[in-house]
Amino acid sequence: MTRHDGRKFDEMRETTIIPGYLKYPYGSVLISCGDTKVICAVQVEETVPEHVAAKNNNSGWLTAEYALMPASGLHRNRRAGYDGTMVKGRVHEIQRLIGRSMRAALDLKKIGPRTIMIDCDVLQADGGTRTASITGAMAALRIAVDKLMQEGKIKENPFMHEIAAVSVGVFKGEVLLDLDYFEDSKAETDLNLVMTKDGGFVEIQGTAENGSVYNEEQLDAMLKVAKSGIKKLFDLQEKALQEYKSTQK
Amino acid sequence: MTRHDGRKFDEMRETTIIPGYLKYPYGSVLISCGDTKVICAVQVEETVPEHVAAKNNNSGWLTAEYALMPASGLHRNRRAGYDGTMVKGRVHEIQRLIGRSMRAALDLKKIGPRTIMIDCDVLQADGGTRTASITGAMAALRIAVDKLMQEGKIKENPFMHEIAAVSVGVFKGEVLLDLDYFEDSKAETDLNLVMTKDGGFVEIQGTAENGSVYNEEQLDAMLKVAKSGIKKLFDLQEKALQEYKSTQK
Amino acid sequence: MTRHDGRKFDEMRETTIIPGYLKYPYGSVLISCGDTKVICAVQVEETVPEHVAAKNNNSGWLTAEYALMPASGLHRNRRAGYDGTMVKGRVHEIQRLIGRSMRAALDLKKIGPRTIMIDCDVLQADGGTRTASITGAMAALRIAVDKLMQEGKIKENPFMHEIAAVSVGVFKGEVLLDLDYFEDSKAETDLNLVMTKDGGFVEIQGTAENGSVYNEEQLDAMLKVAKSGIKKLFDLQEKALQEYKSTQK
Amino acid sequence: MTRHDGRKFDEMRETTIIPGYLKYPYGSVLISCGDTKVICAVQVEETVPEHVAAKNNNSGWLTAEYALMPASGLHRNRRAGYDGTMVKGRVHEIQRLIGRSMRAALDLKKIGPRTIMIDCDVLQADGGTRTASITGAMAALRIAVDKLMQEGKIKENPFMHEIAAVSVGVFKGEVLLDLDYFEDSKAETDLNLVMTKDGGFVEIQGTAENGSVYNEEQLDAMLKVAKSGIKKLFDLQEKALQEYKSTQK
Amino acid sequence: MTRHDGRKFDEMRETTIIPGYLKYPYGSVLISCGDTKVICAVQVEETVPEHVAAKNNNSGWLTAEYALMPASGLHRNRRAGYDGTMVKGRVHEIQRLIGRSMRAALDLKKIGPRTIMIDCDVLQADGGTRTASITGAMAALRIAVDKLMQEGKIKENPFMHEIAAVSVGVFKGEVLLDLDYFEDSKAETDLNLVMTKDGGFVEIQGTAENGSVYNEEQLDAMLKVAKSGIKKLFDLQEKALQEYKSTQK
Amino acid sequence: MTRHDGRKFDEMRETTIIPGYLKYPYGSVLISCGDTKVICAVQVEETVPEHVAAKNNNSGWLTAEYALMPASGLHRNRRAGYDGTMVKGRVHEIQRLIGRSMRAALDLKKIGPRTIMIDCDVLQADGGTRTASITGAMAALRIAVDKLMQEGKIKENPFMHEIAAVSVGVFKGEVLLDLDYFEDSKAETDLNLVMTKDGGFVEIQGTAENGSVYNEEQLDAMLKVAKSGIKKLFDLQEKALQEYKSTQK
Repeated sequence: MTRHDGRKFDEMRETTIIPGYLKYPYGSVLISCGDTKVICAVQVEETVPEHVAAKNNNSGWLTAEYALMPASGLHRNRRAGYDGTMVKGRVHEIQRLIGRSMRAALDLKKIGPRTIMIDCDVLQADGGTRTASITGAMAALRIAVDKLMQEGKIKENPFMHEIAAVSVGVFKGEVLLDLDYFEDSKAETDLNLVMTKDGGFVEIQGTAENGSVYNEEQLDAMLKVAKSGIKKLFDLQEKALQEYKSTQK
Repeated sequence: MTRHDGRKFDEMRETTIIPGYLKYPYGSVLISCGDTKVICAVQVEETVPEHVAAKNNNSGWLTAEYALMPASGLHRNRRAGYDGTMVKGRVHEIQRLIGRSMRAALDLKKIGPRTIMIDCDVLQADGGTRTASITGAMAALRIAVDKLMQEGKIKENPFMHEIAAVSVGVFKGEVLLDLDYFEDSKAETDLNLVMTKDGGFVEIQGTAENGSVYNEEQLDAMLKVAKSGIKKLFDLQEKALQEYKSTQK
Repeated sequence: MTRHDGRKFDEMRETTIIPGYLKYPYGSVLISCGDTKVICAVQVEETVPEHVAAKNNNSGWLTAEYALMPASGLHRNRRAGYDGTMVKGRVHEIQRLIGRSMRAALDLKKIGPRTIMIDCDVLQADGGTRTASITGAMAALRIAVDKLMQEGKIKENPFMHEIAAVSVGVFKGEVLLDLDYFEDSKAETDLNLVMTKDGGFVEIQGTAENGSVYNEEQLDAMLKVAKSGIKKLFDLQEKALQEYKSTQK
Repeated sequence: MTRHDGRKFDEMRETTIIPGYLKYPYGSVLISCGDTKVICAVQVEETVPEHVAAKNNNSGWLTAEYALMPASGLHRNRRAGYDGTMVKGRVHEIQRLIGRSMRAALDLKKIGPRTIMIDCDVLQADGGTRTASITGAMAALRIAVDKLMQEGKIKENPFMHEIAAVSVGVFKGEVLLDLDYFEDSKAETDLNLVMTKDGGFVEIQGTAENGSVYNEEQLDAMLKVAKSGIKKLFDLQEKALQEYKSTQK
Repeated sequence: MTRHDGRKFDEMRETTIIPGYLKYPYGSVLISCGDTKVICAVQVEETVPEHVAAKNNNSGWLTAEYALMPASGLHRNRRAGYDGTMVKGRVHEIQRLIGRSMRAALDLKKIGPRTIMIDCDVLQADGGTRTASITGAMAALRIAVDKLMQEGKIKENPFMHEIAAVSVGVFKGEVLLDLDYFEDSKAETDLNLVMTKDGGFVEIQGTAENGSVYNEEQLDAMLKVAKSGIKKLFDLQEKALQEYKSTQK
Repeated sequence: MTRHDGRKFDEMRETTIIPGYLKYPYGSVLISCGDTKVICAVQVEETVPEHVAAKNNNSGWLTAEYALMPASGLHRNRRAGYDGTMVKGRVHEIQRLIGRSMRAALDLKKIGPRTIMIDCDVLQADGGTRTASITGAMAALRIAVDKLMQEGKIKENPFMHEIAAVSVGVFKGEVLLDLDYFEDSKAETDLNLVMTKDGGFVEIQGTAENGSVYNEEQLDAMLKVAKSGIKKLFDLQEKALQEYKSTQK
C-alpha cells in the first residue's frame, strides 16, 4: 500500500508556520499542514473571569476558541449564531482540548491577573485541524509572551513546557502519521497526541471508528510514530519565534 | 498513603445497576458508583436524521445526551436553556464521547431506519459521571435491544461489542482506580478508558492536569489497572439484563 | 363507573416522601404519587436578585424551576437548550406556580439576604406533576430551613404557612381526586388547589377542557373533595421532616 | 373606604371596544379598560401545526401570543429577542391562558384545516391586561369568523360559547371589581375569571398574594361580583361586531 | 401616469402627529403617514452603557429599537424571541439608522449621564415605516427633552439640529415622493433622506432595485423632491410639541 | 494637510486581489486594501429558499454573510454564537448591503434554481471592510460563475452589471478617497458608493458623523472622487479572473 498522496507511512505533510501573520494581536501565525491552514492569534485582556478572581491569588487565565470558516471545507459550514445555528459539539470538544493543552504549558500564576485569549480560525480544513491549531497556538503564544515580557507585563518566563500536537491513525491496518481528510474519514483508529518538547504526554485521545477496536500493541505503535513526527514541529515553532524576533529589531 | 475513603489503589467503589428504573422508556437503569448516580434511559424514534437518511441504506442512528441535574453537586448547576444559559462545552464533550462509544458497540445497519436516543441524567455527581454514564447506557441499551428484538422490530443481534468504561488517575504519584470527586480534583493525570468485553480499546482519553505530564510507563500502569477494574462492570451489565428479563416473564 | 385503577372517586394514589434523597443540597426529597415521581431539592445562594436588593430591607428571595426529564413520559421530551429547543410555555407556567406558592408560605424577610432555589425534576410523569412538585418542595423546604436554623443562618421560624397541593377533576360527570395521566387527558375539568394546613386557599386554578364548562356547584364539589384529600399530605410532610431529623442526630 | 379613582367596589372601569382597528388582519379591535389598552388581532394561516395534522381529522387550530410594548408601563419593558432577552415566564403564562380560553370557545373541527393566530399587544398597561386581552380577542375573533363565513371558508358557526374575562380582588378586606395597577399591586387576593355568556366557568385563577390566604366565603364573594361585572362585556362584544358589520355593507 | 391613489408625483400622504399618545413615557407620539402608523416613545434610564461610561466625560447615550407588530402587514410578522425567531437583518438595519439619525441631532454631552431609549413600534405598515419612525421619534424626543429640562435634569438645550426623514423613489421612470407599499415594492430606485431643518444632510441611502441603476441626474431629481417634501414635517413636529405643552399647563 | 500615511486626497490604498485563494469553494479571492484583508468565497447549493421557490419561476437566489475574525482588529471581536453573543446590528447592516449589491449584478433567473452563498470573512480590519467585501465578492463571483458555465450548470451569462465599491469621506473639510480606520473614525462624513462598470449607481450611503451635516456640493465632490477611484477596481477584478482562468488550463 502507498498513501494516496505518495507519502511514506511515517511522513508528515509539508508544514510551515508564518509568524506575525496579523498586525493587531500580541502574537499570531498562519500554520499550514499540507492543505490544512489555520490562523492562530493571541490577544490579551487585562481582567480574569470570576472563577479565577475568586481564588484571590493574582493568577491569570487562558482560554481558546476554534472555528471553521464557512468556505473551509467541501460543504459550506454554517456560522454559529447567524441564523440560530448553535456552536456544534465538535467545536466545543476541540476548543476545550486546545485550551486545556495550552494551560498545561503555562504557569498561570506567572502571567499575572490577565486573560490570554487564543483564537484558532481554520481557513482550510483537510484533516488534522485540531493538532495544527495546538501547534500553531503554541507558536503564537510564544511570540505573545515574548512581547509581554519585553513590555514588562510578565516578569518571569511562564512556560512550564513547550507543547505540540500531531495525529496518527490506523488505516487498512497500517499506522499512518498525520492523516489528511481522505485518510481520516476512512481510518479504523484516530489518535491525537499532545506532547511536551521533553517527551511528556499532555493529552492522548485515541478513538476507534467504524466498528473497529484497537489493542495495546497498536496503541504503542501509534505513539511511537507520533513521537517521532512531533519533533520537527518544535523546530518549526522555534524558527517562527526567531524569525519574528528578527523582524522586531 | 491510603485513599481517603479507605479503598485500595485498584479498588472500585461499590457499583450497582438497577434495571427497569423507569416505566416508559424501552430500556433504563439507575447506575450507582459510590455516591455518583446516573439514570440512563433509551428511547426509540421511528425516523433517522437527514445525514443518515441521505445514505439510503436503511441504516439507523444512535445519539446521546448528558446532563447534570441542578442539585447534583455541591454548587447549583444552572439549567441549560432556562435563563439563556448555554449548554457547557464540558457537556458537549461528554455526550459526544457517550454517543461515539455506544455507536462503536452497535451495527447501525441492523437496527433499521430508527434512531436510538440515550439520555444520561446525573442525579448525583461524585466523580466518574462520564464513565458511569457509558457503563449504564450500555446496560440500558441491552435491555432496549432485547425488547426491540422481542417486538420483532430488530431481527438480528446488532451488537458488535459489549462495552464499559472506567476512570483511572495518578494522584500523588500513585495509580488509583475509579477516582471520586475529591481525588479527581487533585489528580495529576486523569484517564478514561472505554473497552469492549473482549479486551479491545474503543476510546482512551488521558489528560495531564495541574502542570503535570505523564510518560509511557505511567500510561501502561494506568491501562493495566483500568483493564482489571472494568471486568466486573460487564458482569453487572449482564446481571441487570437477566434481572430485567426475569421480571418480564 | 369505577376508576381504571380501582380507586374510589375520592381516593388519592399511594403517596410517599423520601427525605434526604440527595446528599449535596440543603434539603431534598423524592416524592411519589402513584407512578409520578419528582425530586425536589432546595439549595441556597448567599445573594439576592437585583429587584430584591433594590428594596434595601435585608429581605431574601425564593425561586423555583421545574423540568421533565427526557425519559419521564411516553414520548421523549426534548431538553431545553440542547439543540435550540426553548423552554416550553407549560414549564414556565408550572414553575411560576411553584415559586408563587412557596413564597406564599415563607416570610422572606426572616430568611435574610439569601436566595432559596427550588428545583423540581420530574423523573416520571403520570399526571399531577405540578401538585406533587409543590407538596414535595414544601417538604424539602422544611428540611432545608431546619438546617439553616440549626446553622444559625436563620434566627426565627420563617414559615407563615405550611402548604400542600392536590388536583381534582370532573371526568364523565364525576368528581375524581388526584387524576393520573389517563384520567387527566380525558377530563372535562381540571382543578389544582394549593392550600395551607389551616384551611386557607393559596391558589385555585380550575380549567374547563374539551369544550366543557363548569358551574358553581361543580366548583364547590371539587373543592370539597380536594380539601379532604390534601390533609394526609401535611402528615406525610411532617413525617418526612421527623424522619430526616432522626437521621441527623 | 373609597377606591382611589372614585369607583364603587363593584364598578368596572370605562370599557370600550373599537372594531376594525387595523386594516390588514381578518379581525381586530382596540379594547380600552380605563388606561389599559390592548390591540387584539386575528390572522389566519392555511396550515395547521404537526400535532394537529397528525390527528388526520381535518381539524383546525388556534394559538395566541401576548406582548407588552416597551413603553406600555412605568419602567421600560425589554423586548424579547432583541438583545438576548428571553420571553418572560409571565408572558408565557398569560398567552397560554388566552389561547386555552379561546380554544374553549371554538369547535376547532368546524374551522377546517387552518390556524387562527391571535395577537394581543398591550399598548398601555394599567392592570387587567390578561382579562382585557381575552375579552378583546373574543371580539376580534367574532369579526374574523364572520368574515371567514362570508368568504365561505367556514361553513357552519364554529362557536360553542361566547366568552369574556374579568378580574376581581380582595383589597384591604373588600372585594373589588376590575382592579387597576395601583390596586392590583397591593391586593391580598387576585382572581381572574373567564366565563361563557350563559354562565359557565371556563377558567378560574385565584391567587393569594403577600402572605394572605383566602377562604371559601371570599371565593364565593369574588365570583359573585365577577359574574355580575362580566355581563356588560358581552354587550360590548356584540356591539363591536354589529358596528363592524355595518361598515362592511 | 397618475399615482394609484390619485396623488401628484411630489405630494406626500396625509401626515399627522398625535403628541402624548401614551401616558407613561417621557415623550410619545402616534405618527400616521397615510395608512402607515407608528408609535414613537422616549424613555430615560439613569445609567449609560459601558462604552460610554469608559469615556469618563459625563456624556449620555441614545439608542433606538424598531419593531413591526405581528398584525401590521398583509402577512403575519413573527415576533422575535417567541419561538426562537431571530430579529431580522432588516430590523437591525432600520433601528441602527434611527439611532444614528437621532444621535446626530443631540449633543450627548448636554444630556448628562443617562440613556435615552427610543422605541418605534409599527402598528400598521404601508411603506415608509423607517422615515415615519425617524420623523415621529424626533417629535417624541422634543417632548421628552422639554420635560427633562422642566424637571431640571437637562440644563441646556441639547439639540444641535432638528431632523426629519422622507422617502422618494423612481417608479416607471418618474420621481415620486413618499412611496406607499404598493409603489415601493415595484420602484426602480428607493432613496431615504434624513435632513436637518436648516437643510443639511444627515443620511442619504439610495438603493437601486430589480436590476436597475440610477445616475447623478436622477439622484439630483430625487433629492430635490425630497427636500421640498420634508419641510412640512418640521412644521408638524413643532405643532405637536406646542400642542403637548399646551395640555401640560 | 497631508494624509497620515502620505497618500494624496484622491489616492486609494494599494489594492490587490489574489484569485483562487481557497481550494474548496467555487470561487474565492483574498482582497487586500492596504492593511484591510478580506477572504471572499462563493459556494453553491442546489436548492432555493422557500420565498424564492414559491414564485415558481425557476429563479435562483444569492445571499451573503459577513464576519470579522476575533483577531482582526485592535480589540478582540467576540464571536457570534459562542457564549450567547448575538450577531451585531452592524454586521446585519453590512451583509444586507453586500447581498443587495450582488443581487443587483445578477439576473437571478439565469442562474437556475440554486443558491449562491457569498462569505466575506475579514482577516484584518483597517477601514473600508464593507467596500472591500463587495469588490472582492464580485471578483469571486465572476470566477464562480465562469466555473458554473464551464460545467454547464448555467447556460447564459447571468451578469447584468459588473459592480465594485469604494468609500470616500470628508475629514477636516477635505474630501478623501478610501479612508483607513484612523481617518474613518474621525471623519465628518462617510460615504460608501457601489457602482456598475458603466457608471450607474447601485447604492449610495452617506452618513454624517459626530454632529456634522453635509450639503449637496460636498455630496457632489464625494461622488466625483469616488467615481474616479472605483475605475481601477474593475481592472483588478478582470485581472483576477484572467489569472484564475490561466491556472485552470
